[in-house]
Amino acid sequence: MKKPLKRIQYNPRRRAGVIGESPGVVIPPEDALKPLITIFSYNAKELVSSEGKDIKVIFDQFKKCSDHTHWIQVRGLGDATLIEEVGAILNINPLVLEDIANVHQRPKFDDYDDYIFAVSRMISFSIDYQLVNLQFSALVKDNIIITFEETHKEHFEGVKNRLAAGKGAIRTAGAGYMCYALTDTILDRYFALLAQLGEQLDEVEDRLYDHADKSIMYETQQLKRTLIVLRRACWPERDKINDMLRTESPLISPEIKMFLKDAYDHCIQIMDLVEGYKEITSSIMDIYLSMVSNRMNEIMKVLTIISVIFIPLTFIAGVYGMNFSRVDPVTNKVMPDNLPELYNPHGYFYALGGMLIIGIIQVVVFWKKGWFSKL
Amino acid sequence: MKKPLKRIQYNPRRRAGVIGESPGVVIPPEDALKPLITIFSYNAKELVSSEGKDIKVIFDQFKKCSDHTHWIQVRGLGDATLIEEVGAILNINPLVLEDIANVHQRPKFDDYDDYIFAVSRMISFSIDYQLVNLQFSALVKDNIIITFEETHKEHFEGVKNRLAAGKGAIRTAGAGYMCYALTDTILDRYFALLAQLGEQLDEVEDRLYDHADKSIMYETQQLKRTLIVLRRACWPERDKINDMLRTESPLISPEIKMFLKDAYDHCIQIMDLVEGYKEITSSIMDIYLSMVSNRMNEIMKVLTIISVIFIPLTFIAGVYGMNFSRVDPVTNKVMPDNLPELYNPHGYFYALGGMLIIGIIQVVVFWKKGWFSKL
Amino acid sequence: MKKPLKRIQYNPRRRAGVIGESPGVVIPPEDALKPLITIFSYNAKELVSSEGKDIKVIFDQFKKCSDHTHWIQVRGLGDATLIEEVGAILNINPLVLEDIANVHQRPKFDDYDDYIFAVSRMISFSIDYQLVNLQFSALVKDNIIITFEETHKEHFEGVKNRLAAGKGAIRTAGAGYMCYALTDTILDRYFALLAQLGEQLDEVEDRLYDHADKSIMYETQQLKRTLIVLRRACWPERDKINDMLRTESPLISPEIKMFLKDAYDHCIQIMDLVEGYKEITSSIMDIYLSMVSNRMNEIMKVLTIISVIFIPLTFIAGVYGMNFSRVDPVTNKVMPDNLPELYNPHGYFYALGGMLIIGIIQVVVFWKKGWFSKL
Amino acid sequence: MKKPLKRIQYNPRRRAGVIGESPGVVIPPEDALKPLITIFSYNAKELVSSEGKDIKVIFDQFKKCSDHTHWIQVRGLGDATLIEEVGAILNINPLVLEDIANVHQRPKFDDYDDYIFAVSRMISFSIDYQLVNLQFSALVKDNIIITFEETHKEHFEGVKNRLAAGKGAIRTAGAGYMCYALTDTILDRYFALLAQLGEQLDEVEDRLYDHADKSIMYETQQLKRTLIVLRRACWPERDKINDMLRTESPLISPEIKMFLKDAYDHCIQIMDLVEGYKEITSSIMDIYLSMVSNRMNEIMKVLTIISVIFIPLTFIAGVYGMNFSRVDPVTNKVMPDNLPELYNPHGYFYALGGMLIIGIIQVVVFWKKGWFSKL
Amino acid sequence: MKKPLKRIQYNPRRRAGVIGESPGVVIPPEDALKPLITIFSYNAKELVSSEGKDIKVIFDQFKKCSDHTHWIQVRGLGDATLIEEVGAILNINPLVLEDIANVHQRPKFDDYDDYIFAVSRMISFSIDYQLVNLQFSALVKDNIIITFEETHKEHFEGVKNRLAAGKGAIRTAGAGYMCYALTDTILDRYFALLAQLGEQLDEVEDRLYDHADKSIMYETQQLKRTLIVLRRACWPERDKINDMLRTESPLISPEIKMFLKDAYDHCIQIMDLVEGYKEITSSIMDIYLSMVSNRMNEIMKVLTIISVIFIPLTFIAGVYGMNFSRVDPVTNKVMPDNLPELYNPHGYFYALGGMLIIGIIQVVVFWKKGWFSKL
Repeated sequence: MKKPLKRIQYNPRRRAGVIGESPGVVIPPEDALKPLITIFSYNAKELVSSEGKDIKVIFDQFKKCSDHTHWIQVRGLGDATLIEEVGAILNINPLVLEDIANVHQRPKFDDYDDYIFAVSRMISFSIDYQLVNLQFSALVKDNIIITFEETHKEHFEGVKNRLAAGKGAIRTAGAGYMCYALTDTILDRYFALLAQLGEQLDEVEDRLYDHADKSIMYETQQLKRTLIVLRRACWPERDKINDMLRTESPLISPEIKMFLKDAYDHCIQIMDLVEGYKEITSSIMDIYLSMVSNRMNEIMKVLTIISVIFIPLTFIAGVYGMNFSRVDPVTNKVMPDNLPELYNPHGYFYALGGMLIIGIIQVVVFWKKGWFSKL
Repeated sequence: MKKPLKRIQYNPRRRAGVIGESPGVVIPPEDALKPLITIFSYNAKELVSSEGKDIKVIFDQFKKCSDHTHWIQVRGLGDATLIEEVGAILNINPLVLEDIANVHQRPKFDDYDDYIFAVSRMISFSIDYQLVNLQFSALVKDNIIITFEETHKEHFEGVKNRLAAGKGAIRTAGAGYMCYALTDTILDRYFALLAQLGEQLDEVEDRLYDHADKSIMYETQQLKRTLIVLRRACWPERDKINDMLRTESPLISPEIKMFLKDAYDHCIQIMDLVEGYKEITSSIMDIYLSMVSNRMNEIMKVLTIISVIFIPLTFIAGVYGMNFSRVDPVTNKVMPDNLPELYNPHGYFYALGGMLIIGIIQVVVFWKKGWFSKL
Repeated sequence: MKKPLKRIQYNPRRRAGVIGESPGVVIPPEDALKPLITIFSYNAKELVSSEGKDIKVIFDQFKKCSDHTHWIQVRGLGDATLIEEVGAILNINPLVLEDIANVHQRPKFDDYDDYIFAVSRMISFSIDYQLVNLQFSALVKDNIIITFEETHKEHFEGVKNRLAAGKGAIRTAGAGYMCYALTDTILDRYFALLAQLGEQLDEVEDRLYDHADKSIMYETQQLKRTLIVLRRACWPERDKINDMLRTESPLISPEIKMFLKDAYDHCIQIMDLVEGYKEITSSIMDIYLSMVSNRMNEIMKVLTIISVIFIPLTFIAGVYGMNFSRVDPVTNKVMPDNLPELYNPHGYFYALGGMLIIGIIQVVVFWKKGWFSKL
Repeated sequence: MKKPLKRIQYNPRRRAGVIGESPGVVIPPEDALKPLITIFSYNAKELVSSEGKDIKVIFDQFKKCSDHTHWIQVRGLGDATLIEEVGAILNINPLVLEDIANVHQRPKFDDYDDYIFAVSRMISFSIDYQLVNLQFSALVKDNIIITFEETHKEHFEGVKNRLAAGKGAIRTAGAGYMCYALTDTILDRYFALLAQLGEQLDEVEDRLYDHADKSIMYETQQLKRTLIVLRRACWPERDKINDMLRTESPLISPEIKMFLKDAYDHCIQIMDLVEGYKEITSSIMDIYLSMVSNRMNEIMKVLTIISVIFIPLTFIAGVYGMNFSRVDPVTNKVMPDNLPELYNPHGYFYALGGMLIIGIIQVVVFWKKGWFSKL
Repeated sequence: MKKPLKRIQYNPRRRAGVIGESPGVVIPPEDALKPLITIFSYNAKELVSSEGKDIKVIFDQFKKCSDHTHWIQVRGLGDATLIEEVGAILNINPLVLEDIANVHQRPKFDDYDDYIFAVSRMISFSIDYQLVNLQFSALVKDNIIITFEETHKEHFEGVKNRLAAGKGAIRTAGAGYMCYALTDTILDRYFALLAQLGEQLDEVEDRLYDHADKSIMYETQQLKRTLIVLRRACWPERDKINDMLRTESPLISPEIKMFLKDAYDHCIQIMDLVEGYKEITSSIMDIYLSMVSNRMNEIMKVLTIISVIFIPLTFIAGVYGMNFSRVDPVTNKVMPDNLPELYNPHGYFYALGGMLIIGIIQVVVFWKKGWFSKL
């Protein structure tokens, strides 16, 4: 009954540190990757990008492109010093820096007077169908947006392409717009994930009617859990976007809010889909359990009917197998009352015929009662 | 166990485009139909209508009827250029145009300063009882209303008749009223759909008490899903109408709001019906499962009682079928203790009689215990 | 399994008309009764009443009693013209008139500038225990209240008696008070209905412990549905009374609001009772299902124990019914190993005794294991 | 299956009167007790109390103690005139008087301009473990508080002791404080009741694991219903105290509100306990049902295994009980193929041995498959 | 079936006193420990601490360190006088003192004009895996914070270490910050507890798929209850922190509120985890029950199939065990119709072969029907 169910982790290990430790200490996860810094500086005219592994690359770029908007993409949280240095440059609250390194935050939007901080969850399937739930956090201040991701994997190819192409508002609408664009891309991935789940659901449902077996139960459970994870990411995401829509921070301009309203609609659609899928998984589970129980009942019924048909016949055979004596062994007197049927020249066939008739009668009666029809 | 269950699609494919793509791009669904444009220009005195396949027909009509209210009905979303041209004429936000082409919007009402945008879902059964869930969107600006539908099918015959007849407020109350009239017609269709579902429910319920079989389970599941789809369309529809009631846009005049309040009541009634039907489907399911289980139990009970009645009888026959020897084969000494019953002249009939009595006693005992009565 | 379950109609046929038809058209239900008009004109001093079948009786009475408060009771909605004429006299919005004739409204209170409109549901059992869910609507303007009912049946005897007696506020507090008095009477009827349901519940529950049979399931389902109908009438009724409490219309004076607060409390009590009864029906259902399952299990257990007791005995009888030969038929050599028990002079009784002992051991073992005790 | 379940009454008989009767009529319950009036007049210095059966005792005391605070405790509602006279003295709205006599009110707080009215439910077990749900109502005006109870039983011994002792705020804080003190005492009783229920739950749960029988189901149902009654009393009680906290009536001074906040916390704690207990009852029910089903399954499994072990053995015995003839009765030719085993000198023991081996193999196979282990 | 289930107490014994007793009386729990007072006086420069068992130690320290912030940690509530003396020093409302001693408070935050009062629950497992739910309360006034705990156990080592180290805001941010720091430490313990629960859940789930037995049910129930206790502590904790965030008391400065917002996020995360774990426990329970039922069904099916295969074979053996006579014992006439098979020279082998074929056919038919495959 061993089942390689891919379990979804609900990590409760919030802090690597000791209980009661001082807040605002940056403690990256133990298995955090070394950071990889990519910095894009852009304005309507040009896009300059460079890459590096430490804070120097940022300073160099700032010097080069003083009147650009900067998107600093930090992939890998393994270097607490880097996060602290970034915090120092922008004068960020240590509690925010702690949240960046502590990768179990719910999506949220915090508005500090001169900068904003936003967290999202990036949920996807890994190659071996493990559900991966990573943290994406963004700090926006003036014309700078710094984003932090847990892995080196490229998640924002589309945004980078748009940045390179330079069409649309992306080059000119400032760091707040970039924050929106990245958030919306994360939502797009949710749609992609839901499309995948939808296909799995379809496949499971097809299997349900074709050849239901136990795997359906496990896979439905698995899908349900994935949906729970998605829902737990999506509800606070909606609240976060709502907070962004209502913020009075100048970093989120009315123009950006128009786009955010679009993202808000997407978020609602995702929640709608998640709820819809949850209802389907429940109904698949119900149908499956009902089918199993029905099939079991059918089998038991058929087996029992077969037994019952033979029981009176076996009894009759038993009766005619009794050894009541026709002739008293001592006096040799014939006792004509004892099993006279046995001494009828055609008794055997009469008995067989009787059995046949009894069997047929039973079958007919059960048939009439509708016991052979499937319920 | 294959079951041709008509599955209801929950399409998660929001965007045909790539993840992270620029917002505001009009990408019609792949299987979208070529657009068919009908334009009605009307005032209290006259109704002018023309048809066409491209934007030219609109310009022509505008020129002809400069002081009329215009209803431009676009059926088929297969031409992105047309949607963009329409957007350009009225100066519409590209995000709105994207929503028109992207047919998975929830019902919503967006109030832009000088125009309004409303989305509804048109839900109906196709000829082969497939549930069809289409998007209807309406743009209202000044004296112009442009509506977009996914198919060429005529959904608004009633409205067109009223327009032709020219009675009531329809000719004079402006583009906002037309928006109400079309929305209300869509709600009317929901009532029609619910009437259909109600009849199906009645039919299923009749069948439940007449001759319950497995089809009841599948059909109830099917009905439940349809109701879920309806509910998911109806809740945001209510919010949308509520938003329309509260808007301060001059396009929705107080007079129109009075009518919208009526539509709002209809929406609540639909939700009420949907919830009521959902409760009925649940209770049908419960009764069905309980009936199946009861019937199964009844059968098993009857079969087991038959078995049990025969078991002691068969045992007795077995006893009298034992070969305990009356006469020692070697010494030929008679052993009168061995199965003396067999040598009684009427032993056989006594045995049969005893069996009969035992059987009757069992039947009577089981009867007394109420085991034959249905639970 | 046919069951004459009195089904409760959830009529989805909102409009008799065509989809997309003009709003505000009065279309009475097809089976509507011819209207019966009773008009009561009263002030502190006198009460004048007359009856008739058309609008004339109203005009006559108006002429006669110019400074009275008038209660015009219209029973039967079969005459669209009458409703339209009444609407014309009082200058009522056609949408309101439509709601009067369209008898599937939820309870609601609409406040138009110079008149108010209230809808309630009158729920009762007909003589043949059919649940009847009728619409009651009231229009109040100046000193006139017009009420519309679906049937000719007298529902407001108590109010008429109080009107005749002339005690209390009823004669002097105006048309708004009459609206309250009629609404409160409808709520009183809910209490009466709930008392009836309470007695049925008690009776079903008594039966549950006395002699549970399948009828309990059907009746509980039936009660549950009735409660659902009541709840669906009562929730919006509460909202309606709440709206009346908050209205600023002069037709609902502060004095009347004090009485309405009382009615509001009654409404809450009704909802409380309905919820309480629903919980009882659920628990009856649960106990019933559990009892059925327990009883079934008990029967199956007893039957199986009987079978199992006989199985080894029958096996022993079978063993001693084997025909192993004591004497080789060819060589006539005695084979003393073959079934020597059969040739023991008291073998039969030893065998019977052994069987008895085995049976007793089984009974004792099963008893010790507690298998005979009820679970 | 008769079960002396102490049923909890949900009395729907709100009004003893006729449907549609005038509001504000005082109709005591039919079985109401004759009233017993106790009046306490107190100030910081002295406490004067007297008792009587009619309104005179109140007037006497008023005359004697003109500058005291008065607590008039009326126990027994059997005298409508008394209630009306009390109402007349204090100039109380008839609707309030009706609510005093009509003992099915939900807890509520009504603030009339110069007096306040509060209702609570007093819930306790009677001596024969019947749940008793009585109404307590209090009228506070100026320095007078009049309380009405349904029975003569003493519920407020503690308060009276404190009044006699004269410590704390009770003598000086006015009639509003007395209203708080009595309400808080009622809440204290809820805690006592919950302690009782908690012990019953513990006892039932102990029994569940010790020797579960059907009584568990009935008692759990009973406890659940008691909890429902408590919850239905406690939720509106909370709202009532909240209303008292928010009232602007000078009868509830800020000092009293501080105490009321304490009572509010108690109310929340009670609700918390009720919800907690409800969850426990549900889980007891679930465990019980699961235990019953498991135990049943175990029994059926054991019985079936016994059957199955004997079935092949009985078959073998049957085979060797067949009468295939070794010698043709006519030709006397030996037929060596027919049942040669029967003529083997040790055939019987071989057969018995074979049966034993088959039986052992079955036991081993079933053991290996883990069918003997409990699930 | 006895099960040493560690039951979680829901203590309803709010007050040790008598019903109706005066509010504001300090009555410690009967089994309360003698208090142990530790007092920390600190400012940016130094940290002075002393320990004692009565109020004197506090006065001494106050004298010594007049311009410090004081944290007075009282562990053990067994001395009512101490609590009252503390209340007298700081001039605290008696209701607050009552709440300190009465250890069944829900988490709450009360803002009195010049001091604040906060209650939390400290939940942990004792050494013998008993769930311990202790009250922690804190009084903050001016530069003094007094905390009350039920046991002598050290819960705040981390905070004391930080205090000793003197880094961060802890020494300088005042008594309000200490209140935050202690609350946050309690939340940290919740995370630790949840980590423990998470591991138990993982372990139970592993066991579920490896070798499910009854212990899973009991442990899941146990975990579920622990989660209920946690949830009941955590919901009001969130409200409490929210109240602290919104208070206008100067004791909670904006700087502290920033930290509290962090604690609020932690609280939400805890609630999220608790809900997530609850869903997992439910799904483990569902899978377990479904597995038990499936396994049972499998066993019964296999057993029944074995029975049914042998039933017709046993019947055939019974038929050929009948004693129909080949030769009339009286006339010695041969009756060739009676069981002619028995006199066929190879009848026995034909019969055995026939049985074998019938058995094989049955196996094949059942196989084809898929009855051997697991459902």
